[in-house]
Amino acid sequence: MTLQNKLEELKSYMTIDYGELITNLENFIKEYTKKLDREGVIIGLSGGLDSAVVAALCERALGSDEVLAMIMPEADSKKENVEDAISFARELNIETKLIDITKYLKVIGAHKLFPLNKIPLSKGIKEGIVKKSYKFFEKKDGETPFSTGLSGLSDAKFNSYIKKTNAYYRAKHRIRMVLLYLYGELENRLIVGAANKTEYKIGFFVKHGCDDAADIMPIINLYKTQVRELAKYLKIPSKIIEKAPSPDILPGLNDEETIGLSYESLDLILLALEKGWQTEEISDSFQIDNKKVEYVKNLIEKSEHMRKVYAP
Amino acid sequence: MTLQNKLEELKSYMTIDYGELITNLENFIKEYTKKLDREGVIIGLSGGLDSAVVAALCERALGSDEVLAMIMPEADSKKENVEDAISFARELNIETKLIDITKYLKVIGAHKLFPLNKIPLSKGIKEGIVKKSYKFFEKKDGETPFSTGLSGLSDAKFNSYIKKTNAYYRAKHRIRMVLLYLYGELENRLIVGAANKTEYKIGFFVKHGCDDAADIMPIINLYKTQVRELAKYLKIPSKIIEKAPSPDILPGLNDEETIGLSYESLDLILLALEKGWQTEEISDSFQIDNKKVEYVKNLIEKSEHMRKVYAP
Repeated sequence: MTLQNKLEELKSYMTIDYGELITNLENFIKEYTKKLDREGVIIGLSGGLDSAVVAALCERALGSDEVLAMIMPEADSKKENVEDAISFARELNIETKLIDITKYLKVIGAHKLFPLNKIPLSKGIKEGIVKKSYKFFEKKDGETPFSTGLSGLSDAKFNSYIKKTNAYYRAKHRIRMVLLYLYGELENRLIVGAANKTEYKIGFFVKHGCDDAADIMPIINLYKTQVRELAKYLKIPSKIIEKAPSPDILPGLNDEETIGLSYESLDLILLALEKGWQTEEISDSFQIDNKKVEYVKNLIEKSEHMRKVYAP
Repeated sequence: MTLQNKLEELKSYMTIDYGELITNLENFIKEYTKKLDREGVIIGLSGGLDSAVVAALCERALGSDEVLAMIMPEADSKKENVEDAISFARELNIETKLIDITKYLKVIGAHKLFPLNKIPLSKGIKEGIVKKSYKFFEKKDGETPFSTGLSGLSDAKFNSYIKKTNAYYRAKHRIRMVLLYLYGELENRLIVGAANKTEYKIGFFVKHGCDDAADIMPIINLYKTQVRELAKYLKIPSKIIEKAPSPDILPGLNDEETIGLSYESLDLILLALEKGWQTEEISDSFQIDNKKVEYVKNLIEKSEHMRKVYAP
């Protein structure tokens, strides 16, 4: 089989019957809401793609009366994302609860850990400093601050600034999880997570945070590029589909800059690895540097601990 | 094989070489601290048995300098437990951080959910009311409020008081998890959970709370009665070994009252089920009511969702 043919075959795995998929996901959501005896679901709505897709699926599965969307920004969150979340929830006609979590981050002592919270800075200045610092910490051996932060940081080069920043931004998603469960349990709702396959495989999420610590994860078997396709079928507003994906937990960093790869490349590499391709085959087929493939393999390996709790 | 012989065989499975076990668990802790590139570990110390055993194992594995114990009581926690935790940490010569989490529960709105927090009551009065309410909600079909609360609460008999109470006490363990990770990440420490096999199997823990949401779980393969044996080998103070195990999250309820079975019976039933015994065999051998065995099977089944996140 020529490389071209192999590549075509690989791309064909990405092709899905989205109509059938939507029906299956609706049934999945209905099934577990019933099995776990819940009166509806609760979701965190960020204004981004994944949570919008999950919200739309829940609304289709259960009807708008059964879906509660929590919108939980903090001081560094983009206003635009909050507005997009509110306006999309309105479109779906689902109930929302808006809570600014900044005060919770302050009271647990997380807020002050972020070096840029020590002095009052405009959001624009903060974004610029974070972007520059991220570049500064990129190492020559192809590691990124993201990949380095996936496991421990005993390496002296990664100093207390990085540890503090990690502790700070990760607390955000964990506090969101606490609030989702708090309101979910109060109203007997199923907690629905929005992690996708791409971010889950490479560890681009907060361990025990609001993406992975949920009751069900409807889109966990879909790569990000597939979620984007699905969004079109669900008629998610193009503004949400087209904006650059961002975790929106550190100002100024979007997903692809943080990871160091486009989702198109990343998903194909992940799929090829899943199908057992060797590094050389992948780099030849996609005409990318060997190092990029090794980098992705490293992400998968280093993030293993985020997908399981180790037992003796 | 006679019932008596079968029972002897079953009990023999409970027998462990504790010296060898301790070495293995020490190696396990060392291995993952190194693999995940951490500078020591962090644990939540409650003053109870499980976390004391985990703390002792960590101290043996890594030395006292590498272990940080977080003691995180709130207004309803027994003073005695905090004192026991502090004094045991002193005995192990490990660093402690004491944080009263009541203010965090207040700021996220969890504290006011507990009906008994609406009016000032002494701890003794609170304990009495909780005990009586628990009995009141025990149903005739052999369910307990604990077993009912494992899945959803759409049943109208379980009204908003129970939902509010569940939301309240569960927030405690989740906030503790947030704090363990916050300080763990700040100091690059491995987060060590203290869930044991008994509570994990029957769902006697808070989903995504400080027991199960950790990096490693050293005693997850040990039944509670085995943990108690292990504690003797580790020379845990007899005061900690002998006190009635209690989750210490609702005033007045200890483990065995809440679950409705002694750990001795519960562990043997769980082990027998693991070995494929039928309900009748178990009730005949242990001379207990069929219904108790069915109750335990029901706990395992209903708590399945706490041990996994469902995917399509």
